Amino acid sequence: MSITSLFTTILKSDQILGPDDLSHRYHHIWHMDQPLNALCVLLPETTQQVSEIMKICYAQELPIVVHGGLTNLVGSTETTGDEVVISTERLNKIEETDTASRTMTVQAGVILENIHNAATEKSLLFPLNFGAKGSAQIGGIISTNAGGLRVLKYGMTRQLVLGLEAVTADGTIISSMKKIIKDNSAYDLKQLFIGSEGTLGVITRAILKLEEAPQSRNAAYIAFDEYEDVVKFLKYMDSHLAGKMSGFELIWKNSYQQMTSVTDAVKPPLPYDYNYYVLVEALGSDQIKDQEEFQQILENALENDLILDAVMAQSPSDIEWFFRIREDVNNLVDFMKHDQHFDISLPIPLIGSYIKERYETLALINGVEQVYAFGHVADGNIHFMIGKENLSNDLKKKIDHCIYGGLKEIGGSVSAEHGIGTHKKDYLELCRTKEEISLMRSLKTLMDSKDLLNPGKIF
Amino acid sequence: MSITSLFTTILKSDQILGPDDLSHRYHHIWHMDQPLNALCVLLPETTQQVSEIMKICYAQELPIVVHGGLTNLVGSTETTGDEVVISTERLNKIEETDTASRTMTVQAGVILENIHNAATEKSLLFPLNFGAKGSAQIGGIISTNAGGLRVLKYGMTRQLVLGLEAVTADGTIISSMKKIIKDNSAYDLKQLFIGSEGTLGVITRAILKLEEAPQSRNAAYIAFDEYEDVVKFLKYMDSHLAGKMSGFELIWKNSYQQMTSVTDAVKPPLPYDYNYYVLVEALGSDQIKDQEEFQQILENALENDLILDAVMAQSPSDIEWFFRIREDVNNLVDFMKHDQHFDISLPIPLIGSYIKERYETLALINGVEQVYAFGHVADGNIHFMIGKENLSNDLKKKIDHCIYGGLKEIGGSVSAEHGIGTHKKDYLELCRTKEEISLMRSLKTLMDSKDLLNPGKIF
Repeated sequence: MSITSLFTTILKSDQILGPDDLSHRYHHIWHMDQPLNALCVLLPETTQQVSEIMKICYAQELPIVVHGGLTNLVGSTETTGDEVVISTERLNKIEETDTASRTMTVQAGVILENIHNAATEKSLLFPLNFGAKGSAQIGGIISTNAGGLRVLKYGMTRQLVLGLEAVTADGTIISSMKKIIKDNSAYDLKQLFIGSEGTLGVITRAILKLEEAPQSRNAAYIAFDEYEDVVKFLKYMDSHLAGKMSGFELIWKNSYQQMTSVTDAVKPPLPYDYNYYVLVEALGSDQIKDQEEFQQILENALENDLILDAVMAQSPSDIEWFFRIREDVNNLVDFMKHDQHFDISLPIPLIGSYIKERYETLALINGVEQVYAFGHVADGNIHFMIGKENLSNDLKKKIDHCIYGGLKEIGGSVSAEHGIGTHKKDYLELCRTKEEISLMRSLKTLMDSKDLLNPGKIF
Repeated sequence: MSITSLFTTILKSDQILGPDDLSHRYHHIWHMDQPLNALCVLLPETTQQVSEIMKICYAQELPIVVHGGLTNLVGSTETTGDEVVISTERLNKIEETDTASRTMTVQAGVILENIHNAATEKSLLFPLNFGAKGSAQIGGIISTNAGGLRVLKYGMTRQLVLGLEAVTADGTIISSMKKIIKDNSAYDLKQLFIGSEGTLGVITRAILKLEEAPQSRNAAYIAFDEYEDVVKFLKYMDSHLAGKMSGFELIWKNSYQQMTSVTDAVKPPLPYDYNYYVLVEALGSDQIKDQEEFQQILENALENDLILDAVMAQSPSDIEWFFRIREDVNNLVDFMKHDQHFDISLPIPLIGSYIKERYETLALINGVEQVYAFGHVADGNIHFMIGKENLSNDLKKKIDHCIYGGLKEIGGSVSAEHGIGTHKKDYLELCRTKEEISLMRSLKTLMDSKDLLNPGKIF
């Protein structure tokens, strides 16, 4: 009996893609030249169908990998060929946008940008935002607890999910589709599924928390020579902008130079005279008043020598320009022979010295050609993009050890946003104790005793 | 061998209170006339000592109940006499306040008000706040995921805990004392301990997320006749105050009348002409500018007939007066023969009709003498205080069924803030599915196979 025939009683034929149909599918949107290697791909349209699929897989002991928008950066959507792939692409319905509750009820396959647009139509905001928004699906976003550019004001995905429906390994549906903000009726089970990278269950639906859409947006670039002054300025801005500060991105000098030297569209807002550049964003309720206030706060900071230089966006197109500099990482990567990315997290006061030491050590590693640091400094989250001359495992490991090497002692994390997947498995013990990892394994065994859900990921 | 002698190798004699020492202890600060019924009380001073205690209890199969500030409202600190009580009163050290990371590292027994004061000293704010702050300890607060008056702006306790240390049933220390906001390195284990009411582990230390201290505070009472207009106004205020709105409390007419008629200290800010009264609070950065802005937003609302009447606090003493009305529930309870409290959660647009129906149904129940509704409406969280003529189980159940009866269909919760404990066990299935409860039980069995941790609570 073929694998696909197992599912013909519960799915229509166009919901089942057999081995011969996989040549145009892939496991990551960056690897569209590599055809997907899997037993089959199933396209369920309801939670019930996901449950039925998983009951069959459970009985047959077939491993499952879930495919959403395939934008995961740590290998969590990789297959080995032995897996049933459940793609959430047909679980793509926005079921409801409730303006009074300020919630949106969605299926797992809805693309983030579609959520943004549906919220905007009702004068609401789903604040989660990042580069891959045009492809990333909310099920994958939740299963990796994605972060992005506005965590500072609105929190990670975990803070934006009110209700969740997931299916566990044996097909049981764990549903808590509630619109309520507060629910202390025993264990908050949705926390198990958020951020566990598909290893404890398959997310099928969610209720998202929306915000009133902001009516103003302001941004500025500010320059510093000392990291300590960046931290002082973060506190100053947070205090003076009350709840309005929505972004505080730090760019190291050499990253800023590269980011602003590729095309006119990313020309530098401030000269290359300083060591650190910060992009601050505020979202508020009144463009004219908020812009005046923002300007005044910056002027006071200049007068009090809190900052060395500043330039404020005077128009929406300025804001777009300011953010394009920070967001278009291709301006860094395009000039690299090969690249290696990092997404670490560490206590804010230690970032300056930690990154400085990494720059110094990386400069001594043969084969490292470019090093660019930047990140969501208010969240303690720094990204590194490192250009290198070859793909040798030896070079990769040297770079890994340099970046991760000091995190354990200072209470950092090898993954602030992206997760562990397959790429960071070897480094998990650098930021989790053996007791923690043992408890994680117990949870995994409890909820997926046959190790069928996204096997080989995390552990 | 006596029970206390089990612990003499790991604790000093003054850390062990035997059965004869318990006459001055109790299980709840409202029941100080009832002496504590337990095997012994232990007063550990370190996580290591908690771990040692629990290893002994695990070996001897002795159940454990943790006592913090004893302010829990659902019976979670109750004992039957067969338990070892671990009191966290000597785990009372604030280990560090880090102004750059904006974190505070505390032991579990630190009293909330001491955390507030230590934060204020460094121009920081720990936003969690509620009536019992002078007694409640942070360990208990975290284990119940407490809410309170400023959830709207800052979130529940779950959102305010960055690092956590807890001891599981067999004495294993699960420690993740990190100051970082973002950590996607596999499962977020602290979520297991937050809100599980001491049934999965004993919390010993935490790292709390602090905020910059606000520089302005404004508040107003606003009047409405229609519930729908309250919801419209909530959206209006949230939109116009951007991130500054910190409280939005709704008081039903008869509750307002009672709350404002007891003493001059709680005299009514608005006349008794309306059906609903809302107390709005905003925290910002500039008292004069923010007050002007708040006033202007209210004037615009009046002009546009969004609201019927409004009065704004003109001074800190006005703000104190406004909040005293809402917070001093004794002005309700003191006039009741017996009282029964509720803490439900439901979707915001349905609150008006749900509460109206409850008022109508309760009026028909023999023995119900007073009914007062009020609550954190922006969080969907309504409190009921019900006065009744007797303590019969029959009357209690009738009232319970009236309040909880319709929650299942509308996706509500029998506990928004207080937890399940022993008092709400019978109603858990009104807001959680049997699959959810089954998964909860599996987690409990996994982590506490001998059922030693706070036995009889939740399940």
